[in-house]
Amino acid sequence: MTTEQLTDQIHTKKSFLCIGLDVDMTKIPTHLLTTEDPIFEFNKAIIDATHDLCVSYKPNTAFYEAYGIKGWQSLEKTINYINENYPEIFTIADAKRGDIGNTSSMYAKAFFEDLNFDSVTVAPYMGKDSVEPFLAFENKHTIMLALTSNEGAFDFQTKNVAGKELYKVVLETSKNWKNAKNLMYVVGATKAEYFTEIRKIVPHSFLLVPGVGAQGGSLQEVCKYGMSENVALLINSSRGIIYASNGTDFAEKAREEALKLQQEMAVILNK
Amino acid sequence: MTTEQLTDQIHTKKSFLCIGLDVDMTKIPTHLLTTEDPIFEFNKAIIDATHDLCVSYKPNTAFYEAYGIKGWQSLEKTINYINENYPEIFTIADAKRGDIGNTSSMYAKAFFEDLNFDSVTVAPYMGKDSVEPFLAFENKHTIMLALTSNEGAFDFQTKNVAGKELYKVVLETSKNWKNAKNLMYVVGATKAEYFTEIRKIVPHSFLLVPGVGAQGGSLQEVCKYGMSENVALLINSSRGIIYASNGTDFAEKAREEALKLQQEMAVILNK
Repeated sequence: MTTEQLTDQIHTKKSFLCIGLDVDMTKIPTHLLTTEDPIFEFNKAIIDATHDLCVSYKPNTAFYEAYGIKGWQSLEKTINYINENYPEIFTIADAKRGDIGNTSSMYAKAFFEDLNFDSVTVAPYMGKDSVEPFLAFENKHTIMLALTSNEGAFDFQTKNVAGKELYKVVLETSKNWKNAKNLMYVVGATKAEYFTEIRKIVPHSFLLVPGVGAQGGSLQEVCKYGMSENVALLINSSRGIIYASNGTDFAEKAREEALKLQQEMAVILNK
Repeated sequence: MTTEQLTDQIHTKKSFLCIGLDVDMTKIPTHLLTTEDPIFEFNKAIIDATHDLCVSYKPNTAFYEAYGIKGWQSLEKTINYINENYPEIFTIADAKRGDIGNTSSMYAKAFFEDLNFDSVTVAPYMGKDSVEPFLAFENKHTIMLALTSNEGAFDFQTKNVAGKELYKVVLETSKNWKNAKNLMYVVGATKAEYFTEIRKIVPHSFLLVPGVGAQGGSLQEVCKYGMSENVALLINSSRGIIYASNGTDFAEKAREEALKLQQEMAVILNK
C-alpha cells in the first residue's frame, strides 16, 4: 500500500484510528477459550465489528510469540484474514526488530513477504545498516521508534546529544538513509508537546501514535500539535477497545469504543 | 543456568565459544533440502559435531521467522534438542527484543518459558521498563545491546551524551535497574580497543562478542582488552563455522573450524 492510498482511506472513513491486536489469553472472554484458536476467533470478531471505523490493525508480535507455534499460527491467520477480507486496511506488524544487515533482511522477508504486512516497527539503536534492509521493499513501510510512550523513554531517548535530544538525532539522521521515503515513526501520545518539535524535522511523515487511552495521552492534544496538512497520523488504541468487555458482547462493546474515537476524529478532520 | 555454572563449563571445556545458528536455506548443503525439516537437520548435525568445543549456541530468531510457522517449528525443535541432549550448554535466543512493560513480559515468557532459552538479547532504546520484565526471571539472562559490530553502531551508539558515548550511558544506567545481576551485554569484536573502557564500567559482567571472523574482529585483541578475571566472555562465530563447507562434510568441517577457535581459547585460558 502507498501512503497516498492510506491517506485516501483516512479521508474516506474519516478516521485515522489504528486498533492494536495485543491479545492476551487471560483477558479474552472465557467462552472463546473452548474454540480451536481463541486468539484468532477473538481477532476475527473484533475486526469484523470495527473494520469500517479504523484504517489500520496492529498485532503486537510479542502476544503471539508467547504462545509459540500456536501463537504464530494465530498471527498468520489474522493477517491473512485482514488481507483477504479487508485489503484496504493498512497492516502493521508491531515487532520492534533490528539487527545487522543480513539479519534485518531476514526479518523484512518474514514480515513483508512471508506474512505480507504493509509495515513493521523497528528499533533504531543499531543504526543505518540495521534499518535500510527494511526500507528496500517497495510500497512497504518501516515504522521506526523515535519517542516512545513509556517511562523508560527518558532513560536514553531524551538525553542531550550535542545540543539536542537523541530522538531528534534519530529522526534527522534517518532522513538521509536510502529509501527514507518508506519511513514512518513511533511517537508516544503521552508527550504531546513534543510533536511541534518533531513536525519541524519530519513535517509530512506518518507518525504512529500509541498511548492514547490506557496510557493517558489525549487525542485532541496530539492532533493539535502533530497533525500535518496531509493528516499523517495513525492513532493507536489497543486495550481501551479490544477489552471494552470480556463478556459475549465484547465485539459490540469494542465497536462502541472505536466509534467514539472515530467520531472524535471525524470532527477533527472536518475542521 | 547460573553464571557460575557457565563459568565452570568454560573452564571444563577450555572454551568460551558460542556458535551462532543463523541458518539460511540458500546456504545449507543441498542434500538436506529433501528432508522434512532441513534447518533442524542442519542444526542437529552441527550441534552433534561441535557441542564439546563450545559452551553456547545462539540461534538468531530472524532466520527462523523468515520461514514462518515452519521456521518457528525448526527453532523449537533446535532448542529442545539442545536442552534434552546437552543441558550443560548455555542457550541464547538472539532476538533483540524490547517493548513497553506488559509487552516485554510477553517476550520474556516466549523465550524463557515457552522455548526455555537461558537468555535472550534485547535492545536498550526504550529504557528501564522495557528491559526489567526480562530481568525478573531467576537464573535467566538478558543480554543487552551496548556497542554492536556493524557500521551503523556509529550512528547513535558512539554519539556524545554529556561527555561520554551513548553506549557507556547505556551500560552505566542499566547497572541501576532491578535485578541488574541478570544482565550481560553485546559488545562487537570489531572495536577491541573499546573493551578497556567497557571493563571499567562492567568489570565482571559477561560480554557476548559477535564479529570475530566474518566481520573482521580478532580473538586475541578482544581477550587482551576484554577478558575479566572470571573470563566473562562469550565469543560468537556463526558463518565461519556453520558454512565452512556446503558439501556432505559440512558438520565435519564445522567441527574443524570450531576446534581451531577452541584451541586458541585454551591457550589464552592457560596463560
